[in-house]
Amino acid sequence: MNIYDVSRRAGVSIATVSRVLNGNPNVSQKTRSRVLAVMDELGYTPNVFARGLGLGTMKTIGIMCSDSSDPYLANAIYYLERQLRSHGYDSILCCTGTSLENKRTCFELLLSKRVDAMILAGSKFVELIDRDNDYLIQAARELPVMLVNGYLDAPGIYSTVCNDYEAMYQVTSRLVDSGKKDILYLYTSHSYSGLNKVQGYKNALADRGLPVRRELIHQCAKDLTASRQLIEQLADSGLSFDAVMTSDDSLAVGAVKFACSKKISIPEDLAVVGYNNSILSYCTTPEISSVDTKVEELCTATVTTLMSVFDGSQVPSRTVIAADFIQKETTNFSF
Amino acid sequence: MNIYDVSRRAGVSIATVSRVLNGNPNVSQKTRSRVLAVMDELGYTPNVFARGLGLGTMKTIGIMCSDSSDPYLANAIYYLERQLRSHGYDSILCCTGTSLENKRTCFELLLSKRVDAMILAGSKFVELIDRDNDYLIQAARELPVMLVNGYLDAPGIYSTVCNDYEAMYQVTSRLVDSGKKDILYLYTSHSYSGLNKVQGYKNALADRGLPVRRELIHQCAKDLTASRQLIEQLADSGLSFDAVMTSDDSLAVGAVKFACSKKISIPEDLAVVGYNNSILSYCTTPEISSVDTKVEELCTATVTTLMSVFDGSQVPSRTVIAADFIQKETTNFSF
Repeated sequence: MNIYDVSRRAGVSIATVSRVLNGNPNVSQKTRSRVLAVMDELGYTPNVFARGLGLGTMKTIGIMCSDSSDPYLANAIYYLERQLRSHGYDSILCCTGTSLENKRTCFELLLSKRVDAMILAGSKFVELIDRDNDYLIQAARELPVMLVNGYLDAPGIYSTVCNDYEAMYQVTSRLVDSGKKDILYLYTSHSYSGLNKVQGYKNALADRGLPVRRELIHQCAKDLTASRQLIEQLADSGLSFDAVMTSDDSLAVGAVKFACSKKISIPEDLAVVGYNNSILSYCTTPEISSVDTKVEELCTATVTTLMSVFDGSQVPSRTVIAADFIQKETTNFSF
Repeated sequence: MNIYDVSRRAGVSIATVSRVLNGNPNVSQKTRSRVLAVMDELGYTPNVFARGLGLGTMKTIGIMCSDSSDPYLANAIYYLERQLRSHGYDSILCCTGTSLENKRTCFELLLSKRVDAMILAGSKFVELIDRDNDYLIQAARELPVMLVNGYLDAPGIYSTVCNDYEAMYQVTSRLVDSGKKDILYLYTSHSYSGLNKVQGYKNALADRGLPVRRELIHQCAKDLTASRQLIEQLADSGLSFDAVMTSDDSLAVGAVKFACSKKISIPEDLAVVGYNNSILSYCTTPEISSVDTKVEELCTATVTTLMSVFDGSQVPSRTVIAADFIQKETTNFSF
């Protein structure tokens, strides 16, 4: 007998049951009564800490990320935790992996604790198939759901995003203006962020009168060895390219390693553009020009928005942060 | 009026007050009575969630790390959280920074929540001055304190460490056997782990009849630019060296970048050894030979030990995990 059985029998979400247990005043008296009746009927005993907790908040936020050892997400968790702590909130972390089932399980697990809000760090939490996002949309009726670099249009869901489209549009435009014509584009995922990035690349090409060529656009695992091997295969197959744009620095590192091994001059014969301006982009020789996606600003804005939601202030459902291009040694256009 | 006042007036630790609030049976009846009397006297009202919680556990572990955006610590947090989750425990994270004051504040803050144990990830939590560790030793009388890659000999403190001494001793010996004589040693901190590493280097030199030269041993910020600049300065000042050993991959990346910029051949004219075998060691060309400190094994062993402590089993106060040397392209000795 657990909270899931209660949720199912009462025909309400896990979040609602959790809110009733926590005495959250945002549950209607009618719903509250139904949930309590079902608990009675099923003989459900909430755990000792949930029992009798009639008011207030645990001042705890659930943070989900797919993989905290990813440099971008590691930074995000660091900034989120620090910001939340400075407002007196604890962070309960859950590393979910990428499968939808695990993400849902983690989400429901954290909801069944007494978290005041959920923060989903990284663009991997918004699914391409609409109904796969129902659990988020439903939960957001009960508590704020904050997306860091993801976007879902639903009440109670607040997004802070980086303008990936604009960043990729600008970088692609500058590459073309500097004489590059065959720009290889490597991406890791079809997330909200991933789709915006590739759209920026495509539209910039189209606006400059260049064709968008399918054979230049490839998905690749977020891994420098995979990216190096893919680029090598493409080159061996006769594809020619004079620039590589990537949706993540790790892929750009693979491109630099490919060029080093083939003695191709960077940026003259091959320009390389990374994304996220992580420490990886500083490790290579030459250092990789990369888009700074302002992870600290994104996290600060997310927490600021959340605090405003808690205060009952009006807040925008989407906050957009501008990215910066950090030119280092793998590009040489003017920006 | 807060938990600190109660602790001071009752002459017991914060942890003890917290245990009394949580109804932990490991507090003596005498101490319990004194704490409750002081609370009464001071008119202290614990927060709504602490009040009336007479039994059980929150199944929550406090995790402290100095900086979750450090690649080693980011990995550690990932493995710890996953392992704890698999045993049904939540992780509350606190990124402390490096100042003792912040570390103590975070520690006491987490204790004042209902954590069942504290895990301190990374070697930065054991101070060189004994009395600076008193807060850990005192707290460990009340709840398990787990150190990941740190060591303190006190009841209730359990350490899982990597044999850094042995790893550095072996690598130094092999470098000497392969003909290297002037081995620069760069380190980031005087932590337990840091001291063991440099001792391994020194003893290996001594055992092979080579002098330990102060001018070859330097502290450096954990930053690839700082390390590159330091190495350049040392070379410019006339110091000659044929190998660079480092206590962290980021310093080794600086060494490779230095060599690339000066067209020094690696490993013939300069061998480079990293530490932690992080993704950074794979980003450079040539890739950096590095010591794999088995962070996943360390974290798994830490959680396994903790579960045994919870079960009341006898467990060793120190578990040692063997490191591996991963030879890549910046060394060429046999190992």
